[in-house]
Amino acid sequence: MADSPPFERLALIGIGLIGSSIARAARRGGLARHIACTARSEASRQTALDLGIVDSAHPDPAACVDGADLVIVCSHLGTYEAVGRAMAPALRPGAIVSDVGSVKACVFRDLGPHIPAGVHLIPGHPVSGTEKSGPTAGFAELFDDRWWIITPGPDNDGAAVERLAAFVRGLGSRVEIMDAERHDLVLAITSHLPHLIAYNIVATADDLETVTQGEVIKFSAGGFRDFTRIAASPPEFWRDVFLNNREAMLEMLGRFTEDLVALQRAIRWSQGDSLLQQFSHAQGIRQRIIEAGQETDAPDFGRRAPAPDADG
Amino acid sequence: MADSPPFERLALIGIGLIGSSIARAARRGGLARHIACTARSEASRQTALDLGIVDSAHPDPAACVDGADLVIVCSHLGTYEAVGRAMAPALRPGAIVSDVGSVKACVFRDLGPHIPAGVHLIPGHPVSGTEKSGPTAGFAELFDDRWWIITPGPDNDGAAVERLAAFVRGLGSRVEIMDAERHDLVLAITSHLPHLIAYNIVATADDLETVTQGEVIKFSAGGFRDFTRIAASPPEFWRDVFLNNREAMLEMLGRFTEDLVALQRAIRWSQGDSLLQQFSHAQGIRQRIIEAGQETDAPDFGRRAPAPDADG
Repeated sequence: MADSPPFERLALIGIGLIGSSIARAARRGGLARHIACTARSEASRQTALDLGIVDSAHPDPAACVDGADLVIVCSHLGTYEAVGRAMAPALRPGAIVSDVGSVKACVFRDLGPHIPAGVHLIPGHPVSGTEKSGPTAGFAELFDDRWWIITPGPDNDGAAVERLAAFVRGLGSRVEIMDAERHDLVLAITSHLPHLIAYNIVATADDLETVTQGEVIKFSAGGFRDFTRIAASPPEFWRDVFLNNREAMLEMLGRFTEDLVALQRAIRWSQGDSLLQQFSHAQGIRQRIIEAGQETDAPDFGRRAPAPDADG
Repeated sequence: MADSPPFERLALIGIGLIGSSIARAARRGGLARHIACTARSEASRQTALDLGIVDSAHPDPAACVDGADLVIVCSHLGTYEAVGRAMAPALRPGAIVSDVGSVKACVFRDLGPHIPAGVHLIPGHPVSGTEKSGPTAGFAELFDDRWWIITPGPDNDGAAVERLAAFVRGLGSRVEIMDAERHDLVLAITSHLPHLIAYNIVATADDLETVTQGEVIKFSAGGFRDFTRIAASPPEFWRDVFLNNREAMLEMLGRFTEDLVALQRAIRWSQGDSLLQQFSHAQGIRQRIIEAGQETDAPDFGRRAPAPDADG
């Protein structure tokens, strides 16, 4: 690119799936002159360097953020307080500190106290990913046409928010601005509850005495398989999400269970009309998701990994 | 094929996704000299004839099964009693009557009383499908390498069971023999409960006052989207499944809810270790499903329709 990059030094705290995808997409877009990362293990640092996706790799957050004008925390939510404390002394005035965590109000709580005056803390969340992890799992196209939610605080500087939004668009994403509490409520239903449910049904199946694990695996094409994909994400990651979005999770779980008990009662008393009424919600939403471009209708996927039994 | 087809006349009661896929796969394998079907609407009958997948199409089950040596009921479970009554007078001695329903004990209850002496009732269930429906949705490869469960009764003739099994293998499937009650228990956890859960979470999301449907759709890539695919199957089909497998559904629902309440309690009291322990079930099962060939690891699917946030 003819123009000079919009950022001098991009510091990525953590270089797993999301961090390494940001590094690749930032390279692709020419968004930073130097890309630095941290990784706890020497092996991950070497991998990131060998892949050519970063210019420097550091064990220590302070060395990584030194001189950075954009810092993105890409480690688990449970690490934020320690990361904030470690990098605080090296943050330079005018820098932007963002993150990619799946819960946002807790970022102000955990990182906020460590951010020096003159540094802009502007949390963010790319709504994309796969169940894979590690620096080799990333790819530059991960964010293309997906939403990246930015949740500025009430005190955020408008120009800094716009600089971060431009960077995110440069990674390929569409930007949505939302306050942190609203984000946490919306994601509780669109992401956090689905993951908890998926973990739960897999555990329920695994605990059955009457059906063997071999039978569950053999006949998983009936629908169960799709839940195991969702539930294959790293457990520590999701523990941190659920514990940090507790109020919204408890609210959504309460509603979900209430609705499920109503279905259970309808099954017990053979109330077919009541079941049909509840099921009718699903079809419209599915169509609108496809229309909104958040899912391909994917006929070849349908053939490779069919869902069961929908005979007309 | 040089050999004459193993069946003279295959009669398919219903020509939706499953029925039309059987017709296509039976043609591909040269498994029947004549393929007849029923469909309630004139339009569906004409479509089936125009597609060239059947040789005759009938409004009336009796006309369809007249002279058939293999009859497969491919309509919803709720229709079985009426179908049994309608076709009974035309069933010829020595014929095999099977079906493709997702619940099996109820087949003996609903079809059994109408089957004349000398006719073999041998229920079956192909564990495959997509969320699509109608005669144009079928394809010959639907059953390839998938399991087709056959559930003979205690009185079934061994030679007739083997003839049906050979036909099913000819369609491309792998055959599993199981008793009907065990089938209904295994499928309750691998298929029926996952579908009920998917319907339920979509309804819960649709009913929220605090989050709009637009927001749910926009950020559905976080995991919710995968549930809407499962929940897009025809509601009447699933109503019949749940009501006809009531005891197993109530048992599985009780266990699922119990486990979910334990997770909810762990979230409320910030018991991270307890969450981790529950989540650890998932990873092993996922790996074994991939190893068992019931799922491709599907990297391109992962890229087209990513699950959220699994940063390592």
